[in-house]
Amino acid sequence: MTELKNDRFLRALLGQPVDVTPVWMMRQAGRYLPEYRATRARAGDFMGLCTNPQLACEVTLQPLQRYPLDAAILFSDILTVPDAMGLGLYFETGEGPKFRNPVRTAAQVEALPVVNAENELTYVLDAVKTIRHELNGAVPLIGFSGSPWTLMTYMVEGGSSKDFRRSKAMLYSEPEVARLLLDKLVASVTDYLNAQIRAGAQAVQIFDSWGGALAHDAYLEFSLKPMQQIVNGLIREHEGRQVPVILFTKGGGQWLEAMAETGVAALGLDWTTDIGNARERVGDKVALQGNMDPSVLYASTSAIRDEVGRILASYGQGGGHVFNLGHGITPEVDPVHAGAFINAVHELSAGYHQ
Amino acid sequence: MTELKNDRFLRALLGQPVDVTPVWMMRQAGRYLPEYRATRARAGDFMGLCTNPQLACEVTLQPLQRYPLDAAILFSDILTVPDAMGLGLYFETGEGPKFRNPVRTAAQVEALPVVNAENELTYVLDAVKTIRHELNGAVPLIGFSGSPWTLMTYMVEGGSSKDFRRSKAMLYSEPEVARLLLDKLVASVTDYLNAQIRAGAQAVQIFDSWGGALAHDAYLEFSLKPMQQIVNGLIREHEGRQVPVILFTKGGGQWLEAMAETGVAALGLDWTTDIGNARERVGDKVALQGNMDPSVLYASTSAIRDEVGRILASYGQGGGHVFNLGHGITPEVDPVHAGAFINAVHELSAGYHQ
Repeated sequence: MTELKNDRFLRALLGQPVDVTPVWMMRQAGRYLPEYRATRARAGDFMGLCTNPQLACEVTLQPLQRYPLDAAILFSDILTVPDAMGLGLYFETGEGPKFRNPVRTAAQVEALPVVNAENELTYVLDAVKTIRHELNGAVPLIGFSGSPWTLMTYMVEGGSSKDFRRSKAMLYSEPEVARLLLDKLVASVTDYLNAQIRAGAQAVQIFDSWGGALAHDAYLEFSLKPMQQIVNGLIREHEGRQVPVILFTKGGGQWLEAMAETGVAALGLDWTTDIGNARERVGDKVALQGNMDPSVLYASTSAIRDEVGRILASYGQGGGHVFNLGHGITPEVDPVHAGAFINAVHELSAGYHQ
Repeated sequence: MTELKNDRFLRALLGQPVDVTPVWMMRQAGRYLPEYRATRARAGDFMGLCTNPQLACEVTLQPLQRYPLDAAILFSDILTVPDAMGLGLYFETGEGPKFRNPVRTAAQVEALPVVNAENELTYVLDAVKTIRHELNGAVPLIGFSGSPWTLMTYMVEGGSSKDFRRSKAMLYSEPEVARLLLDKLVASVTDYLNAQIRAGAQAVQIFDSWGGALAHDAYLEFSLKPMQQIVNGLIREHEGRQVPVILFTKGGGQWLEAMAETGVAALGLDWTTDIGNARERVGDKVALQGNMDPSVLYASTSAIRDEVGRILASYGQGGGHVFNLGHGITPEVDPVHAGAFINAVHELSAGYHQ
């Protein structure tokens, strides 16, 4: 394999010294970039982009051509897994993702297959291989999956939801059905992430977008426990390097101690948590990734720089910090502001690594 | 004044002994009740209901006729205050509240008046007086207001928002303009809540619906500090009784210690916080109100009862707990399930008050 030219991101995840704090942005290949919108228009629609490894590679690399980012992240969607389970993913303009065949009864859950990624998600694995080749060792490539609970909400609701009515009713009224569904997702996601690692992903992130919508006990039982099961089943080392796992529960700031016990390398933080306080709480068990409010990118470039400085100061001296937004960058952000954010991280962080 | 027949709610807020845990539901006068929908249809629209004291009283009392609730809450909207400031509140079907005249520039903020509730929100105060009269001492009446930051988001965005783009840009890029706007809201809300207390509200709740969308430091500076200023200016005692203040920041579970320092009687908790852990963190500084996930009301009545039992056990022995949902009850809930919730609180809590 090509040697990695910039390994700051992987080093920071493993708590090793770095020259400056590495930075990437969730959803960095996204609609705020005109070049992304152009490629997506060529692809026809969103799933056309996800299922075409050449085009998925093209949009993955676009933000790296514009900004000195320290990592690339596979361009894909978290709902590829339930789609491969036969739920029939489709997108309606302005309405978000939907499933033709939602899963709501015990019989439907029982009939659900476990995904074999090598057979059924080859387009994702081909994208990983293509991107790794095209990156040519410039920066590491991050693979990812949605968490079982997050995937379950879309599968049971049939799409996005405000109150997770059906999926939460299943947790509380039919916990054994929910557990069977989550077990199948644990097996599928574990296989999917391991296949991404074998295809070339050098770190993986589990996106638990909706864990923060759960009550405390329900989070531990129905979101964190399945993620723990996945972590237990992941390939630890590949190509002679450790493969760090990042666990990101949006709205999970109250549960960091429990998340840190899972044995992952790093926790993703949304912006509501003070990163210095989070560091005190988790000690050196895990690295931390985050956590500027993405809406700060709507403020002036000098305000962005101030906020980056505040977060760096809150984290303090030393390694173990990957800078990121606390959630995905939004479509209306000016790309110049994203650049100001990334440059500020590199410029202002050097003093914390001496 | 008529003597209060059921003062469990006020006693629990003040940490005094009670026979069973008192319970009410945020948005208990709401669309899940067919009798509410009927009155609202008679009123024409939502604001027609808010501005008519007789009809506002009618819907306030409806849930009390159905369920053994321990408190009534004024039926009104948090946006009456900005409406009285001249922003022109209106509702578009399926789109939520909007303002004809959003406030986005320094000049617009400077031109904004402070509200005098006695002059400009008489319809609310008349509703309070009518409800107090009709309650005839059955249970206490809660008054309320939105928090300054929450009101500011609607005023700057011109309505609801997903990312609070304009209001957060104002906080970060023009903090002095934001502070002036928040100062005017502090003065207006203080006056408004005091007017509600003088009109007969026996407790007041500050709804900080969107404080949880802020970064840690921004929350302390732009949401909690203005709420502290309001608390400092409120009437402490009326009709020979203390007037307890409840502070509810949705998504504020990470900031309970700071919220408890404001000198309010109680903190509202959403369902993501474990109430037993919250009690340990705040000690006897404040009572706690909450915190069942409102979506549990979509589960079976036996699952609802189990969850009520779990929360009571987590809180443990003794007073200082007002049971509630962690957010407003949703329109699709079966009223029978709401009744099962309320009965379960009374039935299962007696053993915790011996």
